[in-house]
Amino acid sequence: MTEPVATVAAAAAAAAIDALVEALGADAVLTSAADLAGYRDPYDYRGSDAFTASAVVTPRSVEDVQAVLRVANQHRVPVWTFGQGRNNAYGGSAPRVKGSILMSLRELNRVLEVNDELAYALIEPGVSFFDLYEHLRAGGHRLWPSIPDLGWGSVIGNTLEYGRGYTPHGEHPAMVCGMEVVLANGDVVRTGVGGMSNVRTWNAYPWSFGPSHGGLFFQSNLGVVTKMGVWLMRRPEVYLSGWATFADDAVLAPLADAVRELMLEGTIRALPLVGYGLGFGEDEMTLGAPGWGLRFALYGRPAIVEAQFEIVRAALAAIPGVEVGRRMFAWDERETATNHNDKVQGGVPGMELMDAFNQAYGDATGHLDLSLIGPLLGDDLVESIATLRGLYARTEFPYLVGILFLHRSLLHISTLFFDTTDERQTRAAYDAYAEMASEMARLGYPVYRTNIQHMDLIADTFDWGDHAQRRLNELLKDTLDPNGILSPGKQGIWPKHLRPTT
Amino acid sequence: MTEPVATVAAAAAAAAIDALVEALGADAVLTSAADLAGYRDPYDYRGSDAFTASAVVTPRSVEDVQAVLRVANQHRVPVWTFGQGRNNAYGGSAPRVKGSILMSLRELNRVLEVNDELAYALIEPGVSFFDLYEHLRAGGHRLWPSIPDLGWGSVIGNTLEYGRGYTPHGEHPAMVCGMEVVLANGDVVRTGVGGMSNVRTWNAYPWSFGPSHGGLFFQSNLGVVTKMGVWLMRRPEVYLSGWATFADDAVLAPLADAVRELMLEGTIRALPLVGYGLGFGEDEMTLGAPGWGLRFALYGRPAIVEAQFEIVRAALAAIPGVEVGRRMFAWDERETATNHNDKVQGGVPGMELMDAFNQAYGDATGHLDLSLIGPLLGDDLVESIATLRGLYARTEFPYLVGILFLHRSLLHISTLFFDTTDERQTRAAYDAYAEMASEMARLGYPVYRTNIQHMDLIADTFDWGDHAQRRLNELLKDTLDPNGILSPGKQGIWPKHLRPTT
Repeated sequence: MTEPVATVAAAAAAAAIDALVEALGADAVLTSAADLAGYRDPYDYRGSDAFTASAVVTPRSVEDVQAVLRVANQHRVPVWTFGQGRNNAYGGSAPRVKGSILMSLRELNRVLEVNDELAYALIEPGVSFFDLYEHLRAGGHRLWPSIPDLGWGSVIGNTLEYGRGYTPHGEHPAMVCGMEVVLANGDVVRTGVGGMSNVRTWNAYPWSFGPSHGGLFFQSNLGVVTKMGVWLMRRPEVYLSGWATFADDAVLAPLADAVRELMLEGTIRALPLVGYGLGFGEDEMTLGAPGWGLRFALYGRPAIVEAQFEIVRAALAAIPGVEVGRRMFAWDERETATNHNDKVQGGVPGMELMDAFNQAYGDATGHLDLSLIGPLLGDDLVESIATLRGLYARTEFPYLVGILFLHRSLLHISTLFFDTTDERQTRAAYDAYAEMASEMARLGYPVYRTNIQHMDLIADTFDWGDHAQRRLNELLKDTLDPNGILSPGKQGIWPKHLRPTT
Repeated sequence: MTEPVATVAAAAAAAAIDALVEALGADAVLTSAADLAGYRDPYDYRGSDAFTASAVVTPRSVEDVQAVLRVANQHRVPVWTFGQGRNNAYGGSAPRVKGSILMSLRELNRVLEVNDELAYALIEPGVSFFDLYEHLRAGGHRLWPSIPDLGWGSVIGNTLEYGRGYTPHGEHPAMVCGMEVVLANGDVVRTGVGGMSNVRTWNAYPWSFGPSHGGLFFQSNLGVVTKMGVWLMRRPEVYLSGWATFADDAVLAPLADAVRELMLEGTIRALPLVGYGLGFGEDEMTLGAPGWGLRFALYGRPAIVEAQFEIVRAALAAIPGVEVGRRMFAWDERETATNHNDKVQGGVPGMELMDAFNQAYGDATGHLDLSLIGPLLGDDLVESIATLRGLYARTEFPYLVGILFLHRSLLHISTLFFDTTDERQTRAAYDAYAEMASEMARLGYPVYRTNIQHMDLIADTFDWGDHAQRRLNELLKDTLDPNGILSPGKQGIWPKHLRPTT
């Protein structure tokens, strides 16, 4: 397990904490060990204090965020920011640098606008998927959110980490339209046409006049996002939750190629998922149940959905060994869904995947997600699964996997479960991750997102042009955050004074 | 008309030209008046030399681009870069700063890869829409490009200016996946997962590990894009070119709302266009023909396309005064199309719109496009058209308009035609543009793209947070291009030494 490259000096942290109490009031600043315990990385070894914070500060306004950054600059103390801080399997709310001050944006939790006609919401970082879902439902809006597997996370936090859902709006980073960002120097910028004061289209038109800045603030330590426009899906007349089950890895090649063609032609617009050991179809989810399943969903007018289903069914059932099934919901029936796949593709948030995961070691369950990017090509998928099975076979961990179909690529996410009270097993999981991620990078499969312990390792795999992307990131970091106060080390990007000498 | 804020000193330009000849050879550098005449802004007054270049340099490799930037840095001479340099109605290939050296990327014109399965191409900036179309056709690829009205432009150049086409891939900036960029310091960066040497998904997965940099290089003077991955459309079984015609402005409110709903629900996936005076339906295009027309297109399997058309027809024909029509093409019949709308929505490039435009003043025809962004809301559209009709009525120019439907916004593009040999009329057009753009900005409608003469004016309209976006752009400019050699003044972004003191 990686050790922190730096620790914040206790005196500097204490002085900054005093200044934060002065600026925001004592009730906005938590420092007790009991309070801070809730902000550990929940999947680090329970006895470790390697990635602990010195305080949690909770701004209640953009002005408060500016005040926090002012204090951080004055005292040269790093601030690690989160929306809800769930970041499940990627470090929770824990900071990369021990002793950092956590900035929790949970109290910036307003849904500022829902535009029914233009199908977007303008939200703050504390708004969770549960919150957004309830807000849309309570307001009678004809809009569905796209949600990930767990409903507790911040919509903005998930999106900024390139998170995904499973509807036609499932590619969350592509559904962003307009951000408000506080820079390290305290300046507040609105991206895109939000750069015009009275503009009518901040959250409807996604580009700028001149360069578009939004991408800079994904997986980033270059600014603090305080508002985001998020495009939503028009409520469909009906929603069809479909699946295909099969036993043999070899089926994946023709299956993946067939699904790719159905996506490219526009028949399937949502993001399908293939899983091993996730119990698709009629069953409730039972972790580790043998066999493969594909899930997919269709949305819209009944006649079109029926015609699309028939096309999908014919394409998949033509592959030997594949069984295809479906359940259909009218738009106002989706809350009757009990199966996780039916819920999540219908935009109904829940926590049932966590319950399934905790079948492993109960409350002590930890897990790491090895989240690889591959091309959406059947043969490549089968080959990479064979490679991963071989790598997993060298470890003590079983190969359990969900493969999400993006438009021309796959997220190949396998999960290592371990007991966080068992130091040896926890270390073995982190070491196995490092070894497998390095080997897969060597073969051309990068990781899209990682936990705080592996950020430097993964950043190192982006080596093109003698790490040209790192040089660009460092140039931007030195300019936009010269004191290095914003989430140092995030995604392996360090401010000058903490940069490893290699 | 705006005058240049600066002119390159003749001695500096001459020294840089000598160094370029030294570095790239004499045949890569044009300096004669006759050669340079072809690179004027074709729609500036013919007698003006306000925006003329001192030379054109044509690199033949990325290394040549690096050499050009090295010379420019040494001699502090600005380089204005283009792909094909068409940039019709927005300045052609002319530089903002008189005496700049033009860098033409026309000789970087390779289609480096076409991936049939994953439906993308990796191309260089000199590849035009004609070139890409022919390459796909000659190679028998099952892929269609999305094209704008004129086929001669650079695919990369158009895309970097936030250009659009009219298929389901018509939002060109959203179809970019992976760029290679030469920075002012000579460093070459590959964006996204192209940051990993042996990656399998550079042009299939659009995001980075860490911040995503691609947006920085749109409408930009922060780098020179030398390669781009462009997502293409799977060739459909059939393609339906549809239209609706009507006479009354008031029809636009229910029509725009109906089309928005058809787009949000996924029935219409391509980008429809409404035009006044563009002659939709059965007619050939006749500029200024009275009456409104909507065009739209559907693609895919015959049964689905028929069902979708019936939905669209029913929705539009329900509006009093609307006539709906269609033509259907099998995938291999699209080249038989003769009507501009049928061609352009089918991805068949041409130049017929230029012929239509030149009905105004023949070879002397100049035009300016007032390209406004508004929300995709029927009432707002009707109101903004009324406002624009009023503004046009104060000028000597008729109101001729095409309105492109994006997913939640509209591009409201009206075109002023004038005789470029008539100094008074040319000046009147530029002045009318400035007055109308300013008034529309005051009402909340920004411009998405403008000509070199109006860049400062339009940049000024982005005033939120006391021009916070400009401050961010200037911070980035000073860091990434400290000598200010890359396209100074583009989109109103100036290097420090040329910044207007306000």
